Order: sequence, then C-alpha cells, then structure tokens
Amino acid sequence: MAEKSIYDYRVEPHEVDFTLKMTIPDLISTVLNTAGRDALGKGFGVEDLLAGNHSWVLSRMAVEVDRRPEQHEAYRVTTWISEYGRLLSTRNFEILDGDSRPLGRAVTEWAMIDMTSRRAVDLSWVGDSHRDALVDEPSPMAKPVKIRNVIPSEKMIHRVAYSDIDFNRHVNTMRYIDLMFDMLPVELPTCEDPMRFDLHFMKECRYGQTLTVGCEHLDRGARYEISADGEYVALRGAIAWK
Amino acid sequence: MAEKSIYDYRVEPHEVDFTLKMTIPDLISTVLNTAGRDALGKGFGVEDLLAGNHSWVLSRMAVEVDRRPEQHEAYRVTTWISEYGRLLSTRNFEILDGDSRPLGRAVTEWAMIDMTSRRAVDLSWVGDSHRDALVDEPSPMAKPVKIRNVIPSEKMIHRVAYSDIDFNRHVNTMRYIDLMFDMLPVELPTCEDPMRFDLHFMKECRYGQTLTVGCEHLDRGARYEISADGEYVALRGAIAWK
Repeated sequence: MAEKSIYDYRVEPHEVDFTLKMTIPDLISTVLNTAGRDALGKGFGVEDLLAGNHSWVLSRMAVEVDRRPEQHEAYRVTTWISEYGRLLSTRNFEILDGDSRPLGRAVTEWAMIDMTSRRAVDLSWVGDSHRDALVDEPSPMAKPVKIRNVIPSEKMIHRVAYSDIDFNRHVNTMRYIDLMFDMLPVELPTCEDPMRFDLHFMKECRYGQTLTVGCEHLDRGARYEISADGEYVALRGAIAWK
Repeated sequence: MAEKSIYDYRVEPHEVDFTLKMTIPDLISTVLNTAGRDALGKGFGVEDLLAGNHSWVLSRMAVEVDRRPEQHEAYRVTTWISEYGRLLSTRNFEILDGDSRPLGRAVTEWAMIDMTSRRAVDLSWVGDSHRDALVDEPSPMAKPVKIRNVIPSEKMIHRVAYSDIDFNRHVNTMRYIDLMFDMLPVELPTCEDPMRFDLHFMKECRYGQTLTVGCEHLDRGARYEISADGEYVALRGAIAWK
C-alpha cells in the first residue's frame, strides 16, 4: 500500500479574479495537473501509456470548494488512487491551506483508452500490476453524479479552435469548464459560498467542430449539456453554490 | 546597476499542442508571468504599486520564437529593465534552452497608470528611485512596432466573459493573444519555423463588452485589429512566420 502524495502550490497573480481570490476553474486546473504530475512520477502517466498505444481519459469528476485561496497564498494538494474498477480508476484529492485546513476536495474517475479504437480497455491488469499504488483511504466526498435531462434555458455556440485543444486534438477539459462558468451571472463564480461542481463526459470533441453549450439556469447555479455539430451529446455538467 | 534575473521553467503537459511542443501563447504567458514575478520580487510589482493607487499596464510587446521547446523540456527566461522613459519602461527577456542556446526573446514596454483616472503617470521619479534596478544591456531585438491600417478580411465576434478578465475586470492579454492565434490556419501555430509577434495596446476592454476581432490574413501570418462595442480600437497585433 502506498501513501498519499503531496504537492505544494502558491496562488499565482494570473489565477485570481477581481476578488483577488483564485478562480474555481484555476483551482480545478491545478487538481487535474496534479493528477498528471503524480501519474508521471509513478510511471503510469500519459507519456508511459502512449508506448502501449493507451492513454488516460477523464470520465467523470466532482469538486467541492469551501474557500478560494487568496493571491500568493500557499496551498497543498494531496492525491491518491483508492480503487481500480474494471473500467474506471478513482483518483482522489484534498485541497488544504497552509494550516492544513480544508479548502476543498475532489474525486475523479479515469478510463484507459486504446488510442486506435478510442474505446476503454479493461483495467483488471492495471489493478494487479499497480496494486502497490493504491492507498487504503476512501474518497473524501460523494462520487461524481450522473447528470441527466438538462433542459437548457440559454444556448451558446462555440467553434473549437487552436487554443481549445490538447496534445490529442481534442477539446481540453479546462476549456469546457471555462465555457460553463462564462454562462453564469458573474456574482456566482466570484462569491464566497461553498460550491460543488460535477462533470460527466460521454464523447470527445475535436478541432473544427461547433459546440452548443446548453445551460439550464438554477437558483444558485446551473446544469449544462454540451453537444457537438448538433449530432451528439459530448458531456454534461452541474454547478451549485450553497 | 543590477544583473539580469534568471527564472527556470519546464514545459508542462497542458502547455503543449498536438506537436508535443509548447504553444507560442503559453510561451508568451510565461514571459509575462516572469515580468510580474520579477517586479514583485524587486518590490515594484502590481501589488506594491496598488498601495499608491498605481498599476503597471502593458503598452506594447514584441516576441521572437526561434524554436518551441518540447514537453517536459527545461528552459530558462532571463529578464532585465534597460530603460525608464518618461511614459514607458522597457523590460527585456531572453528565452534559452538547457544548453543556453536561444529559443527566443522579447521586449515589453509598460506604462504606469493612476488607478482612478486610468491615465499614464510620469515615470521620471521611478527612473530616479529605481535606477539601481536598471541593467546596462540593450534590448535583444528590435522594439515593438506600431501597427497601422489593418484591413480585415475576416471578423470574429467575442463577448467578454468571466474567463477573459483579470484582477482588474479588464480582458487579460493572454485571451487577446488566444483569439488572434485561433483565427490562423492551424498549420501556422504548429509549424517549426521562426516567428515574430507584435502587440500594441490603445485602450482597455471590460467585462460584458463585445469584441470584434478583425483579421487581415497574410501569406505566412496575419495582422489584427480588435475593437470594443464597435466604438473604439482596443489593440492591434501582427504575427509573421519566416
């Protein structure tokens, strides 16, 4: 059994909004980059998997933010893998301030795909060969929820461009999250209240496609459905402040 | 007289495109963040200036990129201030690889503004009080050019949203640069050839405004004019590959 990994960060000036606190998308970005950093360091990062024509793909994520850290504030992200299912592995995160008080937490579920077929592969062998990477501690929050039946009250069109895509020519997760936050009244992402964010991927989007971001506004948040070229639903998301 | 400051970086996986080399916008982002880091460390960062109701505002920049570094590659940014004019201070950069071979270089010109009037203040007193921060070495490339008479052959509309704005509720420089690169055929930003980028600000844009990004496509690049609400020209830019 392994131990949780610990990564130390500091809020950079380009990560804050006009409240001088870190934006939630930038905090989520740090969480996702920490996942990549930890996997790379342990020998099963995207770079290692590519040798076998495989890659990690984020399937679902849930994030809770209790307090957004301030500009220049030091904070810490701990991460650990708690489980390898047949199709999904579960990576957890705690976000802590300089006095180890919680700022938030996250649970992510990752599929391993075959790069040619782009279909998920059976993770049973990973569970066996990477068993010593597991940490015997449960997820710090309820797992990502499956989001259904979004009824958009507003729609935005976005054509996928160079700045949206990752090393794989697919839209990167952070751009989807920015598009979702951009449809909220600015009072919500800049408020001080605790919040929860869920994301649930179905299919990838590629360079040159046209996205429709459907937003169902709720009292203190929104639910989203993003579709590509009017042909398929790519992902759904939900944001809610307390 | 001071010495050049040196900052070491490594290309992060989220900074590369599908060529697995760092994107030019991400490299420019590192250059600008290095400016902020160096000013902060020397006691004249945006945070220090705010105490006197002042702030630094980027007026013009020029960047040359000879080679884009690869994913995980270590690189170094050196920076120094060579000059305080009456209205603009000049900050320079060299971008070097692990063997100190040049990857590129940049020159930036900054105005100090009064936060209430948002007008430039006379920098003569800064030149006197910060004379020991000057480095006696000229800029490593020709200064940013003034761009005129852009005749757009394509226009894109962008409404300024939460993810576009900085701590000051103005559109951040990086988002303008992304908008410009996104209008190019994808073969250009992903090619291997040396390039030069110029940016020339006239007026700020704010949350909620609608930008028109006018692009005049050229053989190996483009010239841009971005205007706000159809009322004023906010900035012009030019990108050219050899």
